[in-house]
Amino acid sequence: MDDARTDDPSTAQRLSAEALGTFWLVLGGCGTAVLAGQAVGALGVAFAFGLTVLTGAYAFGPISGGHFNPAVSVGLATAGRFAWRDVPAYAVAQIVGATIAGALLLAIANGQPGFDAVASGFASNGYGDRSPGGYSLAAVLVTEVVLTAFFLFVILGASSRRAAVGFSGLAIGLALTLIHLISIPVSNTSVNPARSLGVAWFAGSDAMAQVWAFILAPIVGAAIAGIVHARLLDDT
Amino acid sequence: MDDARTDDPSTAQRLSAEALGTFWLVLGGCGTAVLAGQAVGALGVAFAFGLTVLTGAYAFGPISGGHFNPAVSVGLATAGRFAWRDVPAYAVAQIVGATIAGALLLAIANGQPGFDAVASGFASNGYGDRSPGGYSLAAVLVTEVVLTAFFLFVILGASSRRAAVGFSGLAIGLALTLIHLISIPVSNTSVNPARSLGVAWFAGSDAMAQVWAFILAPIVGAAIAGIVHARLLDDT
Amino acid sequence: MDDARTDDPSTAQRLSAEALGTFWLVLGGCGTAVLAGQAVGALGVAFAFGLTVLTGAYAFGPISGGHFNPAVSVGLATAGRFAWRDVPAYAVAQIVGATIAGALLLAIANGQPGFDAVASGFASNGYGDRSPGGYSLAAVLVTEVVLTAFFLFVILGASSRRAAVGFSGLAIGLALTLIHLISIPVSNTSVNPARSLGVAWFAGSDAMAQVWAFILAPIVGAAIAGIVHARLLDDT
Amino acid sequence: MDDARTDDPSTAQRLSAEALGTFWLVLGGCGTAVLAGQAVGALGVAFAFGLTVLTGAYAFGPISGGHFNPAVSVGLATAGRFAWRDVPAYAVAQIVGATIAGALLLAIANGQPGFDAVASGFASNGYGDRSPGGYSLAAVLVTEVVLTAFFLFVILGASSRRAAVGFSGLAIGLALTLIHLISIPVSNTSVNPARSLGVAWFAGSDAMAQVWAFILAPIVGAAIAGIVHARLLDDT
Repeated sequence: MDDARTDDPSTAQRLSAEALGTFWLVLGGCGTAVLAGQAVGALGVAFAFGLTVLTGAYAFGPISGGHFNPAVSVGLATAGRFAWRDVPAYAVAQIVGATIAGALLLAIANGQPGFDAVASGFASNGYGDRSPGGYSLAAVLVTEVVLTAFFLFVILGASSRRAAVGFSGLAIGLALTLIHLISIPVSNTSVNPARSLGVAWFAGSDAMAQVWAFILAPIVGAAIAGIVHARLLDDT
Repeated sequence: MDDARTDDPSTAQRLSAEALGTFWLVLGGCGTAVLAGQAVGALGVAFAFGLTVLTGAYAFGPISGGHFNPAVSVGLATAGRFAWRDVPAYAVAQIVGATIAGALLLAIANGQPGFDAVASGFASNGYGDRSPGGYSLAAVLVTEVVLTAFFLFVILGASSRRAAVGFSGLAIGLALTLIHLISIPVSNTSVNPARSLGVAWFAGSDAMAQVWAFILAPIVGAAIAGIVHARLLDDT
Repeated sequence: MDDARTDDPSTAQRLSAEALGTFWLVLGGCGTAVLAGQAVGALGVAFAFGLTVLTGAYAFGPISGGHFNPAVSVGLATAGRFAWRDVPAYAVAQIVGATIAGALLLAIANGQPGFDAVASGFASNGYGDRSPGGYSLAAVLVTEVVLTAFFLFVILGASSRRAAVGFSGLAIGLALTLIHLISIPVSNTSVNPARSLGVAWFAGSDAMAQVWAFILAPIVGAAIAGIVHARLLDDT
Repeated sequence: MDDARTDDPSTAQRLSAEALGTFWLVLGGCGTAVLAGQAVGALGVAFAFGLTVLTGAYAFGPISGGHFNPAVSVGLATAGRFAWRDVPAYAVAQIVGATIAGALLLAIANGQPGFDAVASGFASNGYGDRSPGGYSLAAVLVTEVVLTAFFLFVILGASSRRAAVGFSGLAIGLALTLIHLISIPVSNTSVNPARSLGVAWFAGSDAMAQVWAFILAPIVGAAIAGIVHARLLDDT
């Protein structure tokens, strides 16, 4: 996701950057939803998620590429832009970072008298009666697949050899804002298995029972986009 | 709309990029209005439309130029920046992409119990009693002509030989946000015949009966801007 | 305000660009306030004003420098960045553009049954009982002087020889958004005599009786900033 | 924080730029909260704070580096990017600028009949019964430490040798917007001792009694980030 020069950061540096960036995504995005959702509304939450990636892309992107999302790592690998052998370690670092963020967010939220993570939903994703607008499982799966696919189209296009240098972090971050504007009422918006897991652990068994959908659908959408982009749009 | 180097994408790649980008514009912009309009308000819808073009410009712009709008293709042709012979295929690709997005949006929206596309308006454009604020046909036509003309001024200026490289997607996307901030209460904002058609098919016969205005006015505004820009502002 | 290369646009081109850009500022900023203020709130109006300048800077800035504001032309002249002999023609072009925008906005707004420009305020600036929050004349004058001065600091800094190329339109446009976020409740925010005049003509005699403050204070603030910047910050 | 070329501004120029930039941060951020908070909400206040730094970075950053915050100066020194011997003078300039802004804001706010700085809170930071959401001291300290640390990660990453030129002001400003989106309900958001002091002087003895937390926590967070970044992420 970065456009700037690189000279081989170490594996430890790259995995640290992915963990820190995914921590930032969950603390900033889910944190705004949990701590400030009533004050800033869905529009504020949408900007928060996007700005975690925009700022993380400039902060950590030059080191690790700035995925912060296992589906992104898979999609980039599918498109031939990232080594398949690096996907597992990236995914582990992302999920670890997301989970630590979820735990820290829980500790902060418990600093307010009367907070109840399970009752509040704790920014978890869901379908059916756990969808904010009561959307069906099918609608949620289609939405997550399509939106993750277009997230990858933006990532792949904005960081392609034809793109202007430096703008990818801006475009990719604001793509995530747009994705949240569309779909918070549908699924509370995942497009990122690490983000979903990072808070689901703490949101009760009903949240955990649905989290499979938010692991599966983003990865399927990202993989489709990677293949389509490589076959249809890119002639590198 | 792109500022970066190109080395001749194929016609199939260019038309695919236009179809995907216009799909994204309608899914993201109209999708936010339909699925999340109550949650994010007109301000959120305005940002959503602008961010579809901002992100699409960086994702697909390097391939096709990033028009996503038949009026933009006409205006660029009028200004001498795009070949007239390519306008029909671009317009077809744009309308196809917009229509598929409208159909997918309908499928997702129907995943919420009780949704009624016709009764909701389905993000269609309108005048008179179908204008959100009850604005007259004359006010709507003037608004759409003038706003499309300035959309083209931004496109033509931001991608001119004098402009700084890389910023056109940012400026053009945020111009569309601004246009929606001004005119959602007037016409629900079109400035784009493909966007209007993409949802009108599914919004009932009253919407279809008014869609001519949102094909005509944007094209007239874009053509005026193309001529004015070429004669008055540009001395290439 | 532009950072890109220039090769001598003609005087007619430069004045046309200033008139079009100031038209866009008033139609977009005041238009959002008048047509959509209830829908998008003060936050939406603040973004609208900023985006008129951001997009106008990329559209018209490469031709004319993108002032769109007599106070900006004066401040740049005070700082030695713009020829004093060009200030009068720029100011006339700006006020003409703003006035045409005000007239067009009135025509559009009258397309809604029951609209009353004078009773609505028509986005005019004011103090005392015409200040949105009832702020005194002294508070309004101080606010307009200080905010215009910092608007010029951003303009002068972002377009200085030390600044990164291309970012000035972004920084200057968002500075105007910030200025509106601070001061809409105080004075309805001017920092621009052309913007104030462009709507005051149509907003009734009470608005016209106060418009002197929004000609005087922005010019004073801009001139102070031009002098301070040239003496204190710039060692060109 | 600037990415552009420099040729040795004088110490007086650098300290003037820091004082002006921190004045702008407090006038713009706290000013929006005090004067317009009811009109633009927490989302508007979050954008205002971020835009003060985004615009200040382009306006004053090329001269002084654009810290506008004693914690940033400390964090940059800890990371080896700023001379420790310059920290005291920068901090004094920042606090002076912030305090003058607080005094001016008080004068403007008193231009509205019935304004009471102490009763309104005057945008001061707080914990316990002075936290907007009633968050405990521990939650506030953790939040301020962690958010300041990530603010420094963005600053250090976006201005590193690997980063794309010109984007640091954008990323750093929007990071401050994100930080406010997360934490206005927790602590009213400081991450900046100068910002906290600049308004606390005028907000009553209860505000002053808590201001220590907003001096201590941001400096601790920034120092941690400076050390972690230098040891873990940067191999300059």
